Amino acid sequence: MKILVVGGTGRAGSAIVEEALKRGHKVVITTRDANRVKIEKAAILEKEPLALNAKDIEGVDVVVDAVSVPWGSGKGYLHLDIATHIISLLRNTTTRAVFILGSASLAVPGTDYPAIEDYPKETAAAPWFDGALHQYYEWAFLQWVKNVDWIGFSPGEAFPEGPATGYRLSEGILQPDRNGQAHVTTGNMALAILDEIENRNYHHKHFGVFDK
Amino acid sequence: MKILVVGGTGRAGSAIVEEALKRGHKVVITTRDANRVKIEKAAILEKEPLALNAKDIEGVDVVVDAVSVPWGSGKGYLHLDIATHIISLLRNTTTRAVFILGSASLAVPGTDYPAIEDYPKETAAAPWFDGALHQYYEWAFLQWVKNVDWIGFSPGEAFPEGPATGYRLSEGILQPDRNGQAHVTTGNMALAILDEIENRNYHHKHFGVFDK
Repeated sequence: MKILVVGGTGRAGSAIVEEALKRGHKVVITTRDANRVKIEKAAILEKEPLALNAKDIEGVDVVVDAVSVPWGSGKGYLHLDIATHIISLLRNTTTRAVFILGSASLAVPGTDYPAIEDYPKETAAAPWFDGALHQYYEWAFLQWVKNVDWIGFSPGEAFPEGPATGYRLSEGILQPDRNGQAHVTTGNMALAILDEIENRNYHHKHFGVFDK
Repeated sequence: MKILVVGGTGRAGSAIVEEALKRGHKVVITTRDANRVKIEKAAILEKEPLALNAKDIEGVDVVVDAVSVPWGSGKGYLHLDIATHIISLLRNTTTRAVFILGSASLAVPGTDYPAIEDYPKETAAAPWFDGALHQYYEWAFLQWVKNVDWIGFSPGEAFPEGPATGYRLSEGILQPDRNGQAHVTTGNMALAILDEIENRNYHHKHFGVFDK
């Protein structure tokens, strides 16, 4: 398959690119700066995510939005704007879209709404909050979209760089481990995403991904 | 002021263009087909709303989104996509944005939520529903936006072509007249919008507009 990875030079994005290449897929990375691409064998499309157009999507089977916005940059809104832009390009096409959403959009076990809705008020001052809030909006936006074949994956609160060792999925629920924290490596997130890209099991769903 | 009217050849859009020209503003109309523009004195930008870019907005004081999607076209999602696109272009700029939202996003008197949330289920089959639903999503989306100076105006259920005779505003509440229907002419909608463009009284608000 031909997979376009938006944000493919980032931490999560580069793990997805590597896993996709390992499985023999054709990969295109969009990046604002081609010099940042360290991965051979991937094609490079040097442009801003918001400048992607219908032509860039031609022949692409799956768009993966792995953009991450630096904490404290005040640009969390880019999570939302890039998602709405990708969706607008894919309306009524057969190209699938995969979004990495934040852990704050997963529900705490025993509840059925995004955890961020229950965060204490002072949380809003944390440097990560702006990004988490807009990924929560991104998830709310996606639920309005019926004519694009999208799927969302959220990591646990801990999402370190690390190898592919095996993963568990949950339907939008945080799954803390014995130490009380839900965590997933970038390698395991990449495994989950590539498995779903190949298996096409789910549509219009939001999964939590955790280390096995 | 320089005002860009997206959908400026439509019923509501052309009333806004005329009122803006009458008041001496510079007007640019975006249209997919320049042959449709019957109004002299307005500049024409021939492109799809979703193809607008940052350069098109340079020097523009206000963008008015007056796009209407034909009932039954199945393209109601364009209401949402065009709004998210305009917002993405205006982030952290001083250019204002004015959106015409649907009457279904106004609250019935005595309630504090959009009327569409209470519509009977069979309403979903009506030809206007798809557009109304996506204008409701558009209004929900706008409430997430803090770094663009936007404002929304909704007509009553009846929104016929007609002259500017005077209008009333409500803060997001339907105001039926003696005959039980909330109505506003395109001329009165244009008056309300141009008054607010000139007066800059409100920010991040949603008003109902009705004939006086």
